[in-house]
Amino acid sequence: MKKYRLNSLFLVIIFIISFANYTNADTLADVMQARGLTEKDVLAAAKTYVPTGKRDKFIAFDSGGQSGQVIVFGIPSMRILKYIAVFTPEPWQGYGYDDESKAVLSQGRIQGKDITWGDTHHPALSETDGEYDGKFLFINDKANPRIALIDLNDFETKQIVVNPVFKSSHGGAFVSENTDYVMESAQYATPFENEYVPLEQFNEKYRGGMTYWRFNREEGRIKPEESFTVMAPPYSQDLSDFGKGPSADWSFTNSFCSERYVGGIELGKPPFEAGCSAKDTDFLHVVNWRKAAEIVKAGKVTKINGHDVITMETAVAEGILFLIPEPKSPHGVDVTPDGKYIVVSGKLDTHTSVYDFEKIQKAIAEKKFEAKDSYGIPIIAMPDTLHTQVELGLGPLHTQYGARPCEAFTSLYVDSMVARWDYCEGKLLDKISIHYNIGHLMTMHGDSKNPRGKYLIAMNKLAIDRFNPVGPLHPQNHQLIDISGEKMELLYDMPIPLGEPHYSVAISADLLKPVVRYKVGWNSREDKRSEYGVRAGREHTDKQPGKVEVFGTVIRSHITPEIIEVNQGDEVIIHLTNLERAQDETHGFALYGQNVNLSIEPGKTASYRFIADKPGVYPYYCTEFCSALHLEMQGYLLVKPKDYKEVAQKSEAGFVYSKSDYDEQVKKNIATQAVIDEVVNFITARNYQDFPAAVALVEDTTDQLNFAKEVQAKAEAAATKEDWQNAMLWASQWWQYQVKAADIGLRAKTYLEQEGAKVVQ
Amino acid sequence: MKKYRLNSLFLVIIFIISFANYTNADTLADVMQARGLTEKDVLAAAKTYVPTGKRDKFIAFDSGGQSGQVIVFGIPSMRILKYIAVFTPEPWQGYGYDDESKAVLSQGRIQGKDITWGDTHHPALSETDGEYDGKFLFINDKANPRIALIDLNDFETKQIVVNPVFKSSHGGAFVSENTDYVMESAQYATPFENEYVPLEQFNEKYRGGMTYWRFNREEGRIKPEESFTVMAPPYSQDLSDFGKGPSADWSFTNSFCSERYVGGIELGKPPFEAGCSAKDTDFLHVVNWRKAAEIVKAGKVTKINGHDVITMETAVAEGILFLIPEPKSPHGVDVTPDGKYIVVSGKLDTHTSVYDFEKIQKAIAEKKFEAKDSYGIPIIAMPDTLHTQVELGLGPLHTQYGARPCEAFTSLYVDSMVARWDYCEGKLLDKISIHYNIGHLMTMHGDSKNPRGKYLIAMNKLAIDRFNPVGPLHPQNHQLIDISGEKMELLYDMPIPLGEPHYSVAISADLLKPVVRYKVGWNSREDKRSEYGVRAGREHTDKQPGKVEVFGTVIRSHITPEIIEVNQGDEVIIHLTNLERAQDETHGFALYGQNVNLSIEPGKTASYRFIADKPGVYPYYCTEFCSALHLEMQGYLLVKPKDYKEVAQKSEAGFVYSKSDYDEQVKKNIATQAVIDEVVNFITARNYQDFPAAVALVEDTTDQLNFAKEVQAKAEAAATKEDWQNAMLWASQWWQYQVKAADIGLRAKTYLEQEGAKVVQ
Repeated sequence: MKKYRLNSLFLVIIFIISFANYTNADTLADVMQARGLTEKDVLAAAKTYVPTGKRDKFIAFDSGGQSGQVIVFGIPSMRILKYIAVFTPEPWQGYGYDDESKAVLSQGRIQGKDITWGDTHHPALSETDGEYDGKFLFINDKANPRIALIDLNDFETKQIVVNPVFKSSHGGAFVSENTDYVMESAQYATPFENEYVPLEQFNEKYRGGMTYWRFNREEGRIKPEESFTVMAPPYSQDLSDFGKGPSADWSFTNSFCSERYVGGIELGKPPFEAGCSAKDTDFLHVVNWRKAAEIVKAGKVTKINGHDVITMETAVAEGILFLIPEPKSPHGVDVTPDGKYIVVSGKLDTHTSVYDFEKIQKAIAEKKFEAKDSYGIPIIAMPDTLHTQVELGLGPLHTQYGARPCEAFTSLYVDSMVARWDYCEGKLLDKISIHYNIGHLMTMHGDSKNPRGKYLIAMNKLAIDRFNPVGPLHPQNHQLIDISGEKMELLYDMPIPLGEPHYSVAISADLLKPVVRYKVGWNSREDKRSEYGVRAGREHTDKQPGKVEVFGTVIRSHITPEIIEVNQGDEVIIHLTNLERAQDETHGFALYGQNVNLSIEPGKTASYRFIADKPGVYPYYCTEFCSALHLEMQGYLLVKPKDYKEVAQKSEAGFVYSKSDYDEQVKKNIATQAVIDEVVNFITARNYQDFPAAVALVEDTTDQLNFAKEVQAKAEAAATKEDWQNAMLWASQWWQYQVKAADIGLRAKTYLEQEGAKVVQ
Repeated sequence: MKKYRLNSLFLVIIFIISFANYTNADTLADVMQARGLTEKDVLAAAKTYVPTGKRDKFIAFDSGGQSGQVIVFGIPSMRILKYIAVFTPEPWQGYGYDDESKAVLSQGRIQGKDITWGDTHHPALSETDGEYDGKFLFINDKANPRIALIDLNDFETKQIVVNPVFKSSHGGAFVSENTDYVMESAQYATPFENEYVPLEQFNEKYRGGMTYWRFNREEGRIKPEESFTVMAPPYSQDLSDFGKGPSADWSFTNSFCSERYVGGIELGKPPFEAGCSAKDTDFLHVVNWRKAAEIVKAGKVTKINGHDVITMETAVAEGILFLIPEPKSPHGVDVTPDGKYIVVSGKLDTHTSVYDFEKIQKAIAEKKFEAKDSYGIPIIAMPDTLHTQVELGLGPLHTQYGARPCEAFTSLYVDSMVARWDYCEGKLLDKISIHYNIGHLMTMHGDSKNPRGKYLIAMNKLAIDRFNPVGPLHPQNHQLIDISGEKMELLYDMPIPLGEPHYSVAISADLLKPVVRYKVGWNSREDKRSEYGVRAGREHTDKQPGKVEVFGTVIRSHITPEIIEVNQGDEVIIHLTNLERAQDETHGFALYGQNVNLSIEPGKTASYRFIADKPGVYPYYCTEFCSALHLEMQGYLLVKPKDYKEVAQKSEAGFVYSKSDYDEQVKKNIATQAVIDEVVNFITARNYQDFPAAVALVEDTTDQLNFAKEVQAKAEAAATKEDWQNAMLWASQWWQYQVKAADIGLRAKTYLEQEGAKVVQ
């Protein structure tokens, strides 16, 4: 320790000297003075800044709340890397604008109706043996109870399943420790059947419950036909968690409004908020899901809307469902990393309660119940199950775990603070103020068996005065807190520009290994080769009466075909395959007057179908700036009127070229090639093969030069026939490929220079 | 200068001492070592980091590209503050999900079809005397030529206008120096009429042009009936700019593919990209828009699709349209701050050309033309108009201006660099590499008469290896460059998580003064009082055969009404007014099975209508986490079947309360009030009135305590009647208001402590 301190002091001196001698620009002190920064600010800046080309250590996945999306950002830089479209169509990604993703969205229809948004709440990363494995992400929709599946191989939404019995579901998604099941609990109680039941029959016919969605890892899909629901009383079931280790076969779900109060403020009744918070306690629901799955296998289920439901009677008879009182209106229920304890906080209490799984099991084994509820479900006395209770502050809400033994962090909504405490000893350790009114909080790998410590994110519900004003609708505010030292330290305020994140999960960045391209001709939503993909040179358009189907391609910088002619009333289907191999060379496709934008990443095949109902001229083009000639990546769809009579017409060239134009172009091409050769020589003289990014650029350059050679041959063939018009045009295309090659070659050269590549023999 | 250097050295010493003595945590040197940061990195971090509660100096507005949105972010922190929904529905903002915003989107229908996305390209801030005034933002859609208007009073989209003659428009929006007109040019030529014309008639019947949209600042709306288009040849008109100062009456539009080449790769023809870049020059279009507006007033127009069009014949006859050759395939055309020069770069040239406005005027006055094009438009010789040409590098694209005399910055797409140069002397000054392939660039107030210098944003089209990988679709990369010193310095890499920004504008943050709340009962999309707004206590539901109309309210933490009963087949219309005065207290509204999410900011009234076609039970709730009892902010819509026969039923309370429950609750409330009083005393003993944010919080606390008093009276009235059920429920609601008061009071207390408020007498 002492040695380290000495070392760091030594470094401070080095640092001072270098800053004092920093001649080119401002000193750090200048900048601090000019910008009014304190030393603490500079430390926080240094702890969060990620220089160009360097990577973040952790990647977080936020629910987007009512934006219906998932937000991906890096920690500690707090830079948002991607909004993944999930329940809401999003044109930049082509999600909901191409046929393939429309098929995913249509899985989420509610009683036959398209729903074009979601209220996402709690993301869950897939786990193997209780550890995040970086393969899949699950997220729920509260408004229309659904679960979506995102594949972290390409960060795309692959599946949406609709809960067949709930009409509301806040408490999802949570995964079992090997991702056998994904869990979702009901919230506002309703009849399970899709029918009208008067509120007077609330106690008798409205129900809650917990749905266990079976996940098949090999198929990478949720299996609705192998999933089931455990019915529960109309208690507004809420957040849940699966057990871990010793408690792995069990799940825990808390609830509010176990008063079963029905409001009616318009009739002079006290509002829901009054009646739903009148009792001191609500119920923690404890379920043996492993045994429940066996009961389902044994057929002891009732089919409701075609779905397997374990009734409360069966659950009680089979001993899989128990209740334990918990402080009223709790939010989170969070199993400790070792699986021994379950932490619950009541938002209207100042205490956080630590339940002991062993004690719960003991009471169940001994059938030691204090009562049964109105539905016959055994209630275990709270004192029989408690490990400890700790007074943390006002409005405790959600708990996450740190890397140290027994280390927990709990958000305090009313206090606007985060508490760090010890759940073994039941001891408060530290508190820090946040801005303002924190909902959930999140630590690195905080839901897993091995939390990583280092950082905590406070997910604040109000920003108020933190940021430059942008109108009545404010961004949310995430605050990054350093939890590596003895005292928690606020590092960074991050505005959320779109959506209202509720919960988040963060994984070590090195566990994510997404692809940068698809196999050529790939249907990414179904994870298989598209039947509509084509290779270069195999593009074709199939016409039959009433239908035109285009099997085309996109590549820098043209769309094949460039002209599509159809008749009014035709069904037009356009399939486009991106032929690029280069990373980040996405092309788009938009067409006037039709509601289409495709995002076609390297290798992907995307499709769009529509009825050409109005005659006219419809330009189309690439919507992703892909090369210097991007604007020229265009085409025309022509829709002929039904009664159109063809007239023989000859088009006149807009501009006529001569031999001298051709000769001049060739001269230019030869000069350009000399420049390219210089760049290529620079690269190949260096150890570029030690840099994968440079190797990819060299491959792309080679591709472009090969294309150049192909069209050079066409130009020369036309010149031989003295067809100067085509000779010139092909020579121009030859030059275009040279420009693309130069572009990529220069990028590789800059990269190698900056990375300090060495000259090799 | 010398004194300053001494001062800053002195500060360095202070700084060293303070860091060396920093006892609580790591030293800066520790952090640098642990995170591998260089001194340059720390300087960059210090130049960009904005501590909690502090503000950014500039606010930028990016086009979102094919996401159809506008992205708002702060400079230098590069944190995104808001995505403003423009052409694409977005549920978090309720945009496209409430009736009011659906009315805005429906203005953008194309030939009767809903278009639910846009390809936004170039935002423009409203100007007064050539300076940004912070009032309005305009943005175009390339795919379906439209212009949208955003009001910077509340950052909401207010209007969408559809171009009546174009089918494609990349070059928009640009404003005249007093925002009389907003300009949009065509891109891919098409017939102006909405009809089929064979491509063989491209030269004769396909047309381009420039549309001048009249803006009425008082009304805050574009006036389509006072707008007009100057028709132009089918030359793919592109980016444009209005003149400034001496050139203010003129506008400038460049073009590509003046070869009028029509591709057809599927027929063996060279692609568009070859034929559209074969000639060495394209045409800069020079228009006297002031005179054009007079010509329109004089009625010398042709009506096409009901819109005023100045034909090329008229334009030539009246002397308002001229062409000047420009290097081929240019991207930007940018008038210098003094309005004397026009800078154009051809992407396939290494030169940037500076045209002299005076020379252009001289040639026009002297009728010195080198030729006429095929449509009779006079062509001014390039050498007659050039001030200078400068060799900047490969792929020059777009130019912005700095704060120093004659200072210009140009993006170099192929080189992946930014060049700083002097447009008066025609001299290259400095270059910096970016990552990778820059499109547009942007400086602070860079389109105005007074650019502010300091920062430049490189809007790079490729990110490739800059960020943690997130699948085949990469974020874009904005790079922040410090231009305050002699050498440009790269400060920050900012990933764009959604959308592909093309262009951006940045304004000094102090020029933006958005509101934080609306007047109560406000239709924000029409900027007027909503006919559906109600005040507290005036909520009502109007029923008539086949129609139920709800005039309700939302406030922490209940929706009025809480139960809505309708009959199957009824048209249901729900209007909700947010009664909050507190900043950031937005409420949402979602309903199961219907495609609705409202975002109701303080004061706003939002509406949703639908047909209740299926009988059933439909929970609804607030989607914005607004208070500790947010989850209890719920209700039920009940749809009775057509043939339903009412049965007299009595509901049973889920839980029954006694006198002792009531007494205990009252005791708790009195104890809670004591805590609140302490907090209130803390605040009122201090100079909270010097802090507007604290004053607002105190007002909100007072509101909540007044609500508490109201329901306390109800509780006591019920107790007097020994109605313990209602006494207890109202006492519970009384406590709920206390919790809200405590929450806000504590927030104010923390704020005052952190801001160092002083005790007053």
